[in-house]
Amino acid sequence: MVEIDKNFQEEIKRSIRDVYDFPKEGIIFRDITTLLQNGLLFKKVLDYFYMFCEQNKAEAIIGVESRGFIFGGALAYNLQVPFIPVRKEGKLPYATLKESYSLEYGEATVEMHEDALVKGTNTIIIDDLLATGGTLKATTSLVEKCGGKVGGIALLVELSFLNGRDLLQDYEIFSLASYES
Amino acid sequence: MVEIDKNFQEEIKRSIRDVYDFPKEGIIFRDITTLLQNGLLFKKVLDYFYMFCEQNKAEAIIGVESRGFIFGGALAYNLQVPFIPVRKEGKLPYATLKESYSLEYGEATVEMHEDALVKGTNTIIIDDLLATGGTLKATTSLVEKCGGKVGGIALLVELSFLNGRDLLQDYEIFSLASYES
Repeated sequence: MVEIDKNFQEEIKRSIRDVYDFPKEGIIFRDITTLLQNGLLFKKVLDYFYMFCEQNKAEAIIGVESRGFIFGGALAYNLQVPFIPVRKEGKLPYATLKESYSLEYGEATVEMHEDALVKGTNTIIIDDLLATGGTLKATTSLVEKCGGKVGGIALLVELSFLNGRDLLQDYEIFSLASYES
Repeated sequence: MVEIDKNFQEEIKRSIRDVYDFPKEGIIFRDITTLLQNGLLFKKVLDYFYMFCEQNKAEAIIGVESRGFIFGGALAYNLQVPFIPVRKEGKLPYATLKESYSLEYGEATVEMHEDALVKGTNTIIIDDLLATGGTLKATTSLVEKCGGKVGGIALLVELSFLNGRDLLQDYEIFSLASYES
């Protein structure tokens, strides 16, 4: 297990900007761009993710569009393993596997190229945020349909009051900072 | 100047998949996901970008949504400098600068947070592909409006027959592989 320093968790939360009423009234949006502007802190975040990937023997990194790409590319580069994008519907040009999930209103679909993974590859999924868990759950399904294994899910931030972990009980989740409300 | 090995350029092009008639009939889409699946080649690409950033004294990396994030995050991490996302309209939560540009049909808008850059910061802009140059030109305008400088533009692939460089004559462009048709 990678232990996360309590002070570091607080430092992450201080560096994230709360934007009220985005994308709609009543929502507090956790804006991570202010953290990304801090080169040293961004590096420290990725060093933690890197340790998690090493411990869990990542053979490929799955990045969830779009903010997951920022962290995922850095990890794949430093681990020298494949980077596999999971994208919103209609963005990937070749034959894809698709997975839909429910949103508050309506549904959304994510895709992965059907030949993205060598069978049995142990993957780590990366995204910036765990909310209700719909996108991440769909991503785990894509990895498994494609013949891969999910060796863990790494996240910068977890909105724990939305109980996204309930959907993801089969997987090890590593999140660096958590909001209780 | 960073010299690019001719064999490496060919290796990049071999690793990119040509997808016909995407996103519409008559277009050959250069699919870089097959390159990203090759961990060693992906690393080599980023090592070149890293050299370019070092030589041009990058103080921040500007990543263009979405594929620019994959390379940009890796560079910011390894350079220990800020990562600044440029995103499609409506995605960034805080106050933004906007820049619109023409597409074949209609127009598109990109945004950057208005407080994204410390004045005078020397930036390198990263994206996967130079086509007509509209998005990249708009990105240079955002950087400059925000008080930053554009120290160069780094790209994996250039579709040179679309003459995107004409729009970007004021900037140093570093592209790893070029398609003449």
